[in-house]
Amino acid sequence: MVDAVLFEFLHTEMVAELWAHEADPDPGPGEQKMNLLVLESMGFRVGQALGERLPRETLALREELDVLKFLCKDLWVAVFQKQMDSLRTNHQALLCPQGTYVLQDSSFPLLVRMASGLQYVEEAPKFLAFTCGLLRGTLSTLGIKSLVTASVAALPACRFQVVVQRS
Amino acid sequence: MVDAVLFEFLHTEMVAELWAHEADPDPGPGEQKMNLLVLESMGFRVGQALGERLPRETLALREELDVLKFLCKDLWVAVFQKQMDSLRTNHQALLCPQGTYVLQDSSFPLLVRMASGLQYVEEAPKFLAFTCGLLRGTLSTLGIKSLVTASVAALPACRFQVVVQRS
Repeated sequence: MVDAVLFEFLHTEMVAELWAHEADPDPGPGEQKMNLLVLESMGFRVGQALGERLPRETLALREELDVLKFLCKDLWVAVFQKQMDSLRTNHQALLCPQGTYVLQDSSFPLLVRMASGLQYVEEAPKFLAFTCGLLRGTLSTLGIKSLVTASVAALPACRFQVVVQRS
Repeated sequence: MVDAVLFEFLHTEMVAELWAHEADPDPGPGEQKMNLLVLESMGFRVGQALGERLPRETLALREELDVLKFLCKDLWVAVFQKQMDSLRTNHQALLCPQGTYVLQDSSFPLLVRMASGLQYVEEAPKFLAFTCGLLRGTLSTLGIKSLVTASVAALPACRFQVVVQRS
């Protein structure tokens, strides 16, 4: 019970600590972006490290879609005690390359608290950056190079877009 | 399996991130102390929040020693997947007030990795500060005001000293 919320509390503190360093109470877009990058890269390294602890059968997943399903199910349960609500490929969208996946969480735990407290969707990115990195880092260890972004339409729902980098 | 190490990885990243902010590769004692205070207060707030999630029967613990036993057993298992190795009261020591407890962990998880990598005990405080705060914060929610310090004799063993503040 306690361990289930430990990650969440720690994440809250990390975000608070990063933004507390702002001398300016209303920091400019440059500082915001730097903090988001710091969170994303922390998430990336944690994701990489988690990826290295995965069972061997996971590392043997050959199909990209199977890897994504693994993230939505096993990784999400391990970190957030719930599964991702949906996974869609986004082949249809114009201008989207093959290998674009949209992961939708209709009640993302790191946004749930915020939904009742803060009222602004603009605040959401700081609660999503770490997890974008976490997805990118885990994918990286599983051999998939990607770009991961997140967006929020209505709190506490959010979606993560994973664009696999071919080459 | 993954969730058991999530806290540990995240803690590693927090420490790395705080020390990465040092412009000077060999920061002075003032900066070190500030970083340790930041970690300790993050731990305090996480401990407070965890404390609020504890089962009601825990909150009803009347005896100070029972609260300390709870930390050594339940809290430690929740956070570190192991129990504290020993709990001693330190009534005997000269100059020590009543209500001093020494919690000994013979293989503290946040020091285990370090024991093989880094060789200097002087590096240890940055891996102990958060947990000192965690203990202090949980105790605070359980109605016990305390000072918590940690020391290392031989890595990866360490001990936490809890001095209860009466009045």
